[in-house]
Amino acid sequence: MSLVVVGSVAYDGVETPHGKVDRMLGGACTYISLAASFFTKVRIVAVVGEDFAQEDIDLLTRHGIDLEGLERVPGKTFFWAGVYSHDMNDRETLTTELNVFADFQPKLPDSYRSQPYLLLGNIQPELQKSVREQMNGVKLSGGDTMNYWISDFRSQLLVTIAGWDFLLINDAEARMLSGEHNLRRAAAEILAMGPKILVIKRGEYGAILFHRDRHFMVPGYLLQEVFDPTGAGDCFAGGFIGYLAARGVDASSDNIGDAELRRAVIYGSVMGSFCCEKFGVDRFRTLTKPEIDERFNEFRTCTEF
Amino acid sequence: MSLVVVGSVAYDGVETPHGKVDRMLGGACTYISLAASFFTKVRIVAVVGEDFAQEDIDLLTRHGIDLEGLERVPGKTFFWAGVYSHDMNDRETLTTELNVFADFQPKLPDSYRSQPYLLLGNIQPELQKSVREQMNGVKLSGGDTMNYWISDFRSQLLVTIAGWDFLLINDAEARMLSGEHNLRRAAAEILAMGPKILVIKRGEYGAILFHRDRHFMVPGYLLQEVFDPTGAGDCFAGGFIGYLAARGVDASSDNIGDAELRRAVIYGSVMGSFCCEKFGVDRFRTLTKPEIDERFNEFRTCTEF
Repeated sequence: MSLVVVGSVAYDGVETPHGKVDRMLGGACTYISLAASFFTKVRIVAVVGEDFAQEDIDLLTRHGIDLEGLERVPGKTFFWAGVYSHDMNDRETLTTELNVFADFQPKLPDSYRSQPYLLLGNIQPELQKSVREQMNGVKLSGGDTMNYWISDFRSQLLVTIAGWDFLLINDAEARMLSGEHNLRRAAAEILAMGPKILVIKRGEYGAILFHRDRHFMVPGYLLQEVFDPTGAGDCFAGGFIGYLAARGVDASSDNIGDAELRRAVIYGSVMGSFCCEKFGVDRFRTLTKPEIDERFNEFRTCTEF
Repeated sequence: MSLVVVGSVAYDGVETPHGKVDRMLGGACTYISLAASFFTKVRIVAVVGEDFAQEDIDLLTRHGIDLEGLERVPGKTFFWAGVYSHDMNDRETLTTELNVFADFQPKLPDSYRSQPYLLLGNIQPELQKSVREQMNGVKLSGGDTMNYWISDFRSQLLVTIAGWDFLLINDAEARMLSGEHNLRRAAAEILAMGPKILVIKRGEYGAILFHRDRHFMVPGYLLQEVFDPTGAGDCFAGGFIGYLAARGVDASSDNIGDAELRRAVIYGSVMGSFCCEKFGVDRFRTLTKPEIDERFNEFRTCTEF
């Protein structure tokens, strides 16, 4: 029951009020995969340059992540650098060097094509669609997108997400995609575009799941210290699909139960919260499944009445 | 088991993306009292001018609110006008005419002094303190404040809140009062100032209750339409204390149970959400207790997992 993850593997330079790291492992595919790896077997499709370090390969391998679909090509790995505002709710991009990622054409190894779970990280919508089409027997698929694809590749994006079981986006993106400011109405518009399940991520304020005519809200975990929010949304996605994959959920035949989806949203929130506790992917170097389950229970303790 | 509420009774001019009302009943005391009146008997202490309309007196009276402490003096009633941003998360004050509220010296009628519940709306901290001192046998007291008192009347405010059972403030005020950006650490600082219970209101994002070493988070109710958020925070306060008063909670002798406080936070959220559904206090003209209880249950349905 393994999960295929497609997206960027990158190096990031990040500055937050807690410090500065000039270069560290990053990228949506990296964060999603590491988070999901605590729940299920993960296989990635991504591209890196000649500069991609052995220690980063080793980290992914230690998490059991299949790297057969990780292409290494001449040139440099995607590099992004940014600086966060004091409250960490905004960030400014300082550098975006696409490098080898500019020509990324995801190619699925044969061994990936019949895997049941697929998470499409934030890449060009037509590439997301081509990956979905390379697979058969998928039980649950979906992904993420961003403002640039919503505004400049809208028609392609609409065709792409029409075939997804779930869409995970943030509140600003949901407003942009739907043209509705009110999130409840925005969600209704987006569900009418095709996805059966919509999760709107709200950063420190949590997330909202929309599914059929119901919604579920979870507040954000109240961290003592947010070191670096980079990748938190991707880790949410990894926890969400990782949990559903581990449960064997099948959107193609079942009516997916609300209870499973709600727990998936909590596990997403748990993984997003851990991500913020250290710079980059560092928290995942030591994180354990018992810590994850303990935080899941803490969510219940902090929200039940 | 009646509740004494002290604060402003005013007229407001409000413009939101949904419309504009030049003059309507408003003021913290008004909102708190109307919201609390669905749970318990309310007695108010406030001041209005000669222009205060009989229809507004009638509205308060219809909700069983005791107006013995409502002074009417020569001059005009406090008037505030403001305009909300498109997303209604910001508002700009256009006019503040304190009028008779400038010299407000709360005087408690004798019949109020032995009432068990006290909610101090956002007024000068020394006035809040003087009201608390005029009462005896109080079972639960607390209130609200604002950025102006935190910055310019800090020492008086600290003395005042040191004697409160609970403090209800928004997230920006909590950060300002504590000097801590992180809300978990801010809450620890504020609880060390004296209040046993802290509720941080986060507008559309809900609220967080801090009590002893635990916290409870509730997301904001997802309205289909926010017509006018004016007074929502005060209605939260009214629902919170109104519910606790109806339950006979006694902070002076009991260890207040977390379960009761959590339900009070939900009832606060319920009343704040209803407030936003129409302009000013209009929603309270038709609201019923069964609607309130239905929304309470809806909070459970939308948050349990």
